[in-house]
Amino acid sequence: MSAAVSTTRAVRSPKRPRVEPFAAVDVIATKRDGGRLSDAQIDWVVDAFTRGAVADEQMSALAMAILLRGMTDAEVARWTAAMIASGERLDLSAVDRPTVDKHSTGGVGDKITLPLTPLVAACGAAVPQLSGRGLGHTGGTLDKLESIPGFRVALTNRQFISQLRRVGAAVCAAGEGLAPADRKLYALRDVTGTVPAIPLIASSIMSKKIAEGTSALVLDVKVGSGAFMKSLVDARELARTMVDIGTAHGVRTVALLTDMSTPLGLSIGHALEVEESLQVLAGGGPTDVVELVLTLAREMLACAGLSRVDPERALRSGAAMDSWRKMVRAQGGDPGAPLPVARECETVTASRAGYVTAVDAYAMGVAAWRLGAGRARKEDPVSATAGVVLHRRPGDRVRAGDILFELRADDASRIPAAAEIARAAVTIGRTVPEPVRLVLDRVDGDARVSRRSSRGRTKGGGRA
Amino acid sequence: MSAAVSTTRAVRSPKRPRVEPFAAVDVIATKRDGGRLSDAQIDWVVDAFTRGAVADEQMSALAMAILLRGMTDAEVARWTAAMIASGERLDLSAVDRPTVDKHSTGGVGDKITLPLTPLVAACGAAVPQLSGRGLGHTGGTLDKLESIPGFRVALTNRQFISQLRRVGAAVCAAGEGLAPADRKLYALRDVTGTVPAIPLIASSIMSKKIAEGTSALVLDVKVGSGAFMKSLVDARELARTMVDIGTAHGVRTVALLTDMSTPLGLSIGHALEVEESLQVLAGGGPTDVVELVLTLAREMLACAGLSRVDPERALRSGAAMDSWRKMVRAQGGDPGAPLPVARECETVTASRAGYVTAVDAYAMGVAAWRLGAGRARKEDPVSATAGVVLHRRPGDRVRAGDILFELRADDASRIPAAAEIARAAVTIGRTVPEPVRLVLDRVDGDARVSRRSSRGRTKGGGRA
Repeated sequence: MSAAVSTTRAVRSPKRPRVEPFAAVDVIATKRDGGRLSDAQIDWVVDAFTRGAVADEQMSALAMAILLRGMTDAEVARWTAAMIASGERLDLSAVDRPTVDKHSTGGVGDKITLPLTPLVAACGAAVPQLSGRGLGHTGGTLDKLESIPGFRVALTNRQFISQLRRVGAAVCAAGEGLAPADRKLYALRDVTGTVPAIPLIASSIMSKKIAEGTSALVLDVKVGSGAFMKSLVDARELARTMVDIGTAHGVRTVALLTDMSTPLGLSIGHALEVEESLQVLAGGGPTDVVELVLTLAREMLACAGLSRVDPERALRSGAAMDSWRKMVRAQGGDPGAPLPVARECETVTASRAGYVTAVDAYAMGVAAWRLGAGRARKEDPVSATAGVVLHRRPGDRVRAGDILFELRADDASRIPAAAEIARAAVTIGRTVPEPVRLVLDRVDGDARVSRRSSRGRTKGGGRA
Repeated sequence: MSAAVSTTRAVRSPKRPRVEPFAAVDVIATKRDGGRLSDAQIDWVVDAFTRGAVADEQMSALAMAILLRGMTDAEVARWTAAMIASGERLDLSAVDRPTVDKHSTGGVGDKITLPLTPLVAACGAAVPQLSGRGLGHTGGTLDKLESIPGFRVALTNRQFISQLRRVGAAVCAAGEGLAPADRKLYALRDVTGTVPAIPLIASSIMSKKIAEGTSALVLDVKVGSGAFMKSLVDARELARTMVDIGTAHGVRTVALLTDMSTPLGLSIGHALEVEESLQVLAGGGPTDVVELVLTLAREMLACAGLSRVDPERALRSGAAMDSWRKMVRAQGGDPGAPLPVARECETVTASRAGYVTAVDAYAMGVAAWRLGAGRARKEDPVSATAGVVLHRRPGDRVRAGDILFELRADDASRIPAAAEIARAAVTIGRTVPEPVRLVLDRVDGDARVSRRSSRGRTKGGGRA
């Protein structure tokens, strides 16, 4: 008996080289020539890349082929599943509430997660928020929260689940164990010009959100100059792809397409955005931020089966603010401590009278970045205090000499270049501009499924 | 004075990081989005890749983008120039004869270089042949020559030039100093599925041929199942691209497109092909090999300004054979030594009567590979003796039981699998097949230039 067991061991010895079922070059060639990757090819290439058997240069050639040739919905779904399978999938069943998360594709002044997470928790759901850091002209939720003295963004899985049980809200960095294939692939895409591929963006976002264990997910897909997706067509395609992936994995998923041609709210910068979020939680704040927070909260509550709860009431009653304080305290932060303020402040005024017709989100994001709020590389530090405070938004009337915006920085030498960029971001015209709608479209997983199956019938067949 | 000098040294110290004028990701994005790379971008990316400042994963993403987006003629010319500039360019002015080289894109049974090089040398030109090794189903000239006892394929630049002066013919491996960018890029393309890109194939071949210093070049671009280019359209595009590059670099360049649907001659395998080459040099040999050798020799002599010399006479007179013996001896080989012969030989006979309508080059190449003549990876050893000897070619009549071909190998266990592949390569039909033309087309650098400028005039502008 024991001899037989030891034979089995010898056969499985790590010294024996693993026989790979595919050659990377054949998988690359399939996609390069416009073919469809099989489930087995996708499973293998993602796994082999994670363990180093497919080299970085091979995966980057494949990523470029995927970017230029595209992927079918079935390929994207399988690719996402393979990335999820590369790591652990959290089990949130111990959290005694319905779980629902929100993800934004990133924009300028997008502090929505900060008031939204405690608000939805105050309404009875649990929000398992795994967030990221900012890169380039967009800010990251974790950077914003770290401007609160003592706030800790690193939680163990146990701490994360325990906090969701107790508080109903947790915003932290994704652990190393979740979708390690995505972590490795994202670092590679970043340096090889293969970031803007919808199948890769969608599978990257969704693999982490599905692995985090949420039961429902509301996506805020930004469209416009300050967003990653500049056109409504691309944004709709990304939203549709992500909603399909979530639905296929049993996660109730809805996407809103929202405007990012203008910054959200009046503040851009980490501590500045925390301050604005506190205004919202206190029942005030800029109307566009309040509108988007409430719209997303209603979508999240509906997905969580809590559509009868009114989030506006939770804002007015102070319940959302209480939930915020609990969350900040649970993560080591002091909700009563003053936020850091920049040493330098410069105001920029209007040179002529008229109406503000545009405040370009991208340019304002770049201005904030130049002031110190953004980073060019993942390793760069960011300034908690730097940023821009808008005094006028599109549609506002201005007289010559009125303050348009303030620039804040710890380092005065950063202000002149940022001022030039920010000044060019503001357009003043003679007439009141058309108001821009904040929510541009909605993509619903369940609605799509029902529509699709009826269409499938008339065409004489379902979708594979 | 000396203080000033030491300051200058400090500034140029290697410890100071070089400031790169471009970011690799921007160069990749330009091509990814279908743009045209600037001369400065091309010069930088090729140089930076050679010195390691552009990573392998970045270059492989760029190679895939080039494969799928293409390159303009100007981009290909500049890319080639940058690869030449990455290393040394040989100066053959000390060789007291007109220099002309030939390059084949590779096929099955393609031993043409072996008789052609000494033949053209016997006619008064010098042939600076830098050759390669076989990979996959195609054989390499260096592997074939190494089956001659004592033959040395590694020559220094000094030995190479000296042999060209004395003998007029030298066939050896390209030195490390020629186009190192191409060496590095080729190794990368091989593992990332980015080999079949016409701009990259053309610039890879032409950078080495131009760096080797030849004044003229005749290209033998193979078309058909046994060739890299399966279609005449692709082959013509590759030929045109290479002829344009050569012409732009002042190398008189002509390309012939020749058939590779059937193996060349009757022998496939290293020592077997040397044997067949000796038959040609002795004035015999298969008619297709003789025809192609003479056609290419006439093109080469015309390019070298020696069109009045008749190569057929040099074959008949034994001058070509003398030239071969001198060349082999100069490279350490014994032209009189018997060639190695395989231990095992198996014949395959026809199962029915009729006419041979096809002998598929690719399948026969794979059969020879399986017998031991080919390699799957660059590091693999090859058998000098293994291969296939055809007894019948397309158009030949056969009776049931006639020998179709012999399989030779040192390892008998390799024969059954190869026999099956080789048997399927031969088609026997009832009627005589249409004869296949050996030379399918011709692309001439000078002719193109004159035609093009006249076309340019009618359109009101020349070509950039």
